[in-house]
Amino acid sequence: MQPPSDMRQVAVLGATGSIGTSALDVIARHRGRLRASVLGAGSNAGDLVRLCIAHQPDHAVVADPAAYPALRDGLREAGLATRAHAGAEAMEALAAGPGCDTVVAAIVGAAGLGSTLAAAHAGKRLLLANKESLVLAGELVMAAARRAGAEIVPIDSEHSAVFQCLRSCRADGVRRLVLTASGGPFRGWDRARLAQVSPAQAVAHPKWSMGPKISVDSATLMNKGLEVIEACHLFGLPPARISVLVHPQSLVHALVEYVDGSTLAQLGLPDMRTALAVGLGWPDRIDSGVAGLDLLAQGRLDFEAPDLEAFPCLRLASEALAAGGTAPAVLNAANEEAVSAFLQGRVGFLAIPALVEQSLAALPAAPADSLETLLAADAAARRDTRQRIDAMASGSHGA
Amino acid sequence: MQPPSDMRQVAVLGATGSIGTSALDVIARHRGRLRASVLGAGSNAGDLVRLCIAHQPDHAVVADPAAYPALRDGLREAGLATRAHAGAEAMEALAAGPGCDTVVAAIVGAAGLGSTLAAAHAGKRLLLANKESLVLAGELVMAAARRAGAEIVPIDSEHSAVFQCLRSCRADGVRRLVLTASGGPFRGWDRARLAQVSPAQAVAHPKWSMGPKISVDSATLMNKGLEVIEACHLFGLPPARISVLVHPQSLVHALVEYVDGSTLAQLGLPDMRTALAVGLGWPDRIDSGVAGLDLLAQGRLDFEAPDLEAFPCLRLASEALAAGGTAPAVLNAANEEAVSAFLQGRVGFLAIPALVEQSLAALPAAPADSLETLLAADAAARRDTRQRIDAMASGSHGA
Repeated sequence: MQPPSDMRQVAVLGATGSIGTSALDVIARHRGRLRASVLGAGSNAGDLVRLCIAHQPDHAVVADPAAYPALRDGLREAGLATRAHAGAEAMEALAAGPGCDTVVAAIVGAAGLGSTLAAAHAGKRLLLANKESLVLAGELVMAAARRAGAEIVPIDSEHSAVFQCLRSCRADGVRRLVLTASGGPFRGWDRARLAQVSPAQAVAHPKWSMGPKISVDSATLMNKGLEVIEACHLFGLPPARISVLVHPQSLVHALVEYVDGSTLAQLGLPDMRTALAVGLGWPDRIDSGVAGLDLLAQGRLDFEAPDLEAFPCLRLASEALAAGGTAPAVLNAANEEAVSAFLQGRVGFLAIPALVEQSLAALPAAPADSLETLLAADAAARRDTRQRIDAMASGSHGA
Repeated sequence: MQPPSDMRQVAVLGATGSIGTSALDVIARHRGRLRASVLGAGSNAGDLVRLCIAHQPDHAVVADPAAYPALRDGLREAGLATRAHAGAEAMEALAAGPGCDTVVAAIVGAAGLGSTLAAAHAGKRLLLANKESLVLAGELVMAAARRAGAEIVPIDSEHSAVFQCLRSCRADGVRRLVLTASGGPFRGWDRARLAQVSPAQAVAHPKWSMGPKISVDSATLMNKGLEVIEACHLFGLPPARISVLVHPQSLVHALVEYVDGSTLAQLGLPDMRTALAVGLGWPDRIDSGVAGLDLLAQGRLDFEAPDLEAFPCLRLASEALAAGGTAPAVLNAANEEAVSAFLQGRVGFLAIPALVEQSLAALPAAPADSLETLLAADAAARRDTRQRIDAMASGSHGA
């Protein structure tokens, strides 16, 4: 069956996660114009089958080969024509293949890197929610997209905000970008208080409903540091022209200042469906199911400087960005390991920036011109950080 | 001498006023790309000659024929090649003629209407700061611009904000526009207190440095009402989709809400040179001499509902807009007469909305398909309002 030519065929990779389900929510609102043709997940075959029943894609794929039988059998039992696939290679082939023209890259972590790169190489419209693609391999992804003519539409709310504001003119008139940060649940806390933070406190983000890893990244401000790295790649601006402002209400997501003194800002309720609708519909605006902002009910918007003393991760990210090469990969890997250990109760909250800083010092930045080099740096930083965590944890258990 | 083809030849009409001098400031920053080729003023030949010495235009024109000898002699004494002209017809011919491709329409009041329409008919890029052109004759101006392919770039800060925000996508995705109002110097005052307001209090606008008439319009909120009428014409939206929010800091100038829940806002310091640089450089962004906004120094932005009880002019403007035809012309004319009488100390502050409301009731809306009909309605409303003012003033003097 040939779809109408103006129907967008969308591969949603990371379909069972929060961004994936938001994307499917928006797609379902536009049956005549958008279609989920490929759904991909990590290993959750049960949820993926349920999504296939709802969205009837042509293909479903799990990254984990062990989940393949459950996916295949589930699709058969549901009587679906959806074909089952498994493994990273199948995921990449589907992202690059003729069965989609748009890829929502929402697989979390380095696992999403291969399919993101494949989609970029294949010239797809790439709705990019996988942070690691740009933090680890920003130059590679952007270069592949440029060569293949892939259109990258960022889905992170801050980058979507910049994307929307930048569309108003030619980019060489930009003076600077400002990304906002909610400040996280510990805004205003000093280091003594931060030392006592529990995982439960850290995952309770005041504004966005998110997974535990990114909630902790928001609490340490590492999330904002990673976003600054992403923004440099996405918008081709030097780090000195990107700054961060704490905005506790999280309603203004980013601002773009132009050379004529004008600033454009994007505002909205904290709901990923807005950014997804921008990416799926662009250059049209399409309904996302998200209500508009009621500034009257809100009453006021506040802005303050980030506290780099209490939250050193923002500074560490800037340093890694300035060092370049493998440094952002090391920063990201060390942070992932440190956050994981913190969530397991093995190290304290302040150990996160300490571990990242130590890894950056132990593994100095080297040039990175291939994915192999970057993945090797990622692996080395994970090993290095895990050893430090073991030493820390055994030290504290022995005390 | 043939100018380089990428040099923009700008007619600045209303050159001696605050918008005109701001426009000339921006033009002087871009000598290789912008040139003031025509300067026009009302009757101030002395100031106009001084501007001609600085900017060396090809033509200078005064609307008032009585000022012609002073202009002609002043130009001759200065040894300039600038040719002197006088009268409304000369102004219109220059606005429509081959000596400019861009017209800054900054002549205040109905006097600016003829040259604005001439520029629209001639297909010029029209930087529109003359409010009356759209309030009185919005449909005529927009229709002329559409027919001739004239590009209208609004210069009022609120409309420039909308213009910039709208450039980010196709316009049919717009859910609503929000224009902000500072609330004027009497924000929060009740009618009893407003009854005592003096002209000196009313012209002291807290945020923008403006002439007395527009300062009073800001204090009554009529200015915002006129801007809603303008926005309807400029952006082709029905009144129900344009609202007003009081924002005391006057840093956010307008917001555009899209159907996907996203809101774009334009912010900036209150300096007209930003909007003028947008209009002169578009689609490039060019330096305006205006600093960027420091949200950190600002700290917070507040929003509240306008008080339509204390400030009925906003409601009256909406009613005139809904009535259509000659009603906006009557509203504007009655308001100009009432403000003038208030500034002369002849009537009180609360007489302004009362007089406008009475004129709207006395001169019901009639269809308006020609400039003659609109100018006749304008004249009738002025006569009607002046009679009421005379009655009021003699009554109060007699009391």
